[in-house]
Amino acid sequence: MTSRLQKLRASFETHKIDAMIVSRDVNIRYLTGFPASESWLLVTPKKAYYVTDFRYVLEAKKGLPRGVELVQYTTSLGEAVFDLAKKNRIKHFGFESSHISFYHYQALSRIIPKSIKFLPKKGLIEQFRIIKDAGEIALIRQALKIHGEALKRLKRWIKPGVTEMDVLFKLEDFVRSQNAGFSFAPIIASGPNGALPHAHPSRRVIKNHEPVLVDTGIDWKGYKSDLTRMFFLGRMPALVQKMNDLVKEAQRLAIAAIQPGAKASEIDRLARGFLAKHKLDQYFGHSLGHGVGLDIHEEPRLSGKSTATLQEGMIITVEPAVYLPGKFGIRLEEMVLVTK
Amino acid sequence: MTSRLQKLRASFETHKIDAMIVSRDVNIRYLTGFPASESWLLVTPKKAYYVTDFRYVLEAKKGLPRGVELVQYTTSLGEAVFDLAKKNRIKHFGFESSHISFYHYQALSRIIPKSIKFLPKKGLIEQFRIIKDAGEIALIRQALKIHGEALKRLKRWIKPGVTEMDVLFKLEDFVRSQNAGFSFAPIIASGPNGALPHAHPSRRVIKNHEPVLVDTGIDWKGYKSDLTRMFFLGRMPALVQKMNDLVKEAQRLAIAAIQPGAKASEIDRLARGFLAKHKLDQYFGHSLGHGVGLDIHEEPRLSGKSTATLQEGMIITVEPAVYLPGKFGIRLEEMVLVTK
Repeated sequence: MTSRLQKLRASFETHKIDAMIVSRDVNIRYLTGFPASESWLLVTPKKAYYVTDFRYVLEAKKGLPRGVELVQYTTSLGEAVFDLAKKNRIKHFGFESSHISFYHYQALSRIIPKSIKFLPKKGLIEQFRIIKDAGEIALIRQALKIHGEALKRLKRWIKPGVTEMDVLFKLEDFVRSQNAGFSFAPIIASGPNGALPHAHPSRRVIKNHEPVLVDTGIDWKGYKSDLTRMFFLGRMPALVQKMNDLVKEAQRLAIAAIQPGAKASEIDRLARGFLAKHKLDQYFGHSLGHGVGLDIHEEPRLSGKSTATLQEGMIITVEPAVYLPGKFGIRLEEMVLVTK
Repeated sequence: MTSRLQKLRASFETHKIDAMIVSRDVNIRYLTGFPASESWLLVTPKKAYYVTDFRYVLEAKKGLPRGVELVQYTTSLGEAVFDLAKKNRIKHFGFESSHISFYHYQALSRIIPKSIKFLPKKGLIEQFRIIKDAGEIALIRQALKIHGEALKRLKRWIKPGVTEMDVLFKLEDFVRSQNAGFSFAPIIASGPNGALPHAHPSRRVIKNHEPVLVDTGIDWKGYKSDLTRMFFLGRMPALVQKMNDLVKEAQRLAIAAIQPGAKASEIDRLARGFLAKHKLDQYFGHSLGHGVGLDIHEEPRLSGKSTATLQEGMIITVEPAVYLPGKFGIRLEEMVLVTK
């Protein structure tokens, strides 16, 4: 973790700051290993302060690594941080502009000492998180291992006559038994429910001869997995079979093109272009994929608008889909580690 | 729900706006009854538009009430909303400044048409939510009914030899069987764990002759309950008994003073002052209570800094506590509906 703080400090010069306020929980976790909550991390060239209140002090004392000082505030987080800044003779303060509300920004502007400049920085820590180190890859592999076990069981649990919620409850029990958590609320969408990209498990009884779309993720020590699988019960209507084959081919084309140096937008274009040839792009309304790590959705995005270039150590999803309203949905989602 | 939109519109003049962008999910839910996600509600004097993307269109079509028009955007939420604003000849736009990031505010500022003024408004919809109507009170009562059943069961489940997590899992099963959810991650903190105000259930084995602090909440159709109960196993050490009696008395004093017209800060002072007389205020580091509704923590706050005056129809928690680090914690939490 110390090396992550050092990396952040090494970027100060480029960003023309001499300290950074980290307000986003997951970024504090990345930098310190401590699962933060309602607290800020102030990183200066030589020090790092975790500023929290009464409620979290005991946990923080146990959980913070060496080199991060614990500071308990009583009046306000902002005042405590500015006091520390003055002590450390900070002149140019960076803050996470995507993770401070406009209102909070205004409130801070009113109390900030005149000697300090307050500079909006977006995605500064997120940029380090895009490339996963060996430790992070190992944690995601562990999430995927548990995920694989869950998928094996899902194959047994999903059968005609049970409801989507029945399946959800069994999955919850299993994940709990593994001391793991979910990356997001599981999607178990049978028949026409599969046409809702973000369906909630319902009391609908799963029938024979229909597809079931299952999009799930495991959280292991903060790191996430994200996979979508189709389960087919009985004999599939020809249309389902055909859509599944086409989505699979779109996915295959995209994955085959993934390598360091490839443009994220180009990967999206490959899958989308293939579906367009079959006049199916209108039924694929979201982007092709996204980075996964401490966040379930993070950089890089695989979308037409993305300016990202793939690099070794990125972990991304590839999830082409076709949603036919009122009928069914097909989505296939894999996770890919970019390697040479 | 239409009456809630009308109330909001009726407040436009006071706030010097002729439309409001609602970006906070729970406020959209309050105004429309629809559990929003990654979407905005634009309320003009005559119309209301729910602006969403591909992923949520089908659910929204089913779930939105009459009088709210569904708009699907493709490029960006901001552009879609400003287009609608132009069509409706809006000149002064309010936005929820606590629920738009500084970065997002800057991005919107760049694309907003010059003819439109963009005015930060904080807590505009939240202010209506402070006073609960009969329908809301009924939903919270239903949450409390399920909560009461859960507490009866907890009394049987919490016994020497089981772990905090064992208890959690039984509780999860019960809540699921009631088709309800949790308002927040349950706190089941035995012995010294009770001294952490926001403890996570652990594998610690609950022992005889120690207190167990249980802080839980039920979510029923979006509305929340929030209660803390102490469970005492076997004979309690004299110190535990004494602290419990004092916290109970602090709570009794506070609840007795709750009535329309009372100052929230005064209620806090009553409980805190009583604990201070016993030199215990240093072990009670958080505020006395908070409003509960669609949010688990909402206005009014019962704290020394609060400027709120209690009114009929508010629902608030009263939760004095004493945390003795390394030893145990006592917190007692009730929900109170303010009536004449």
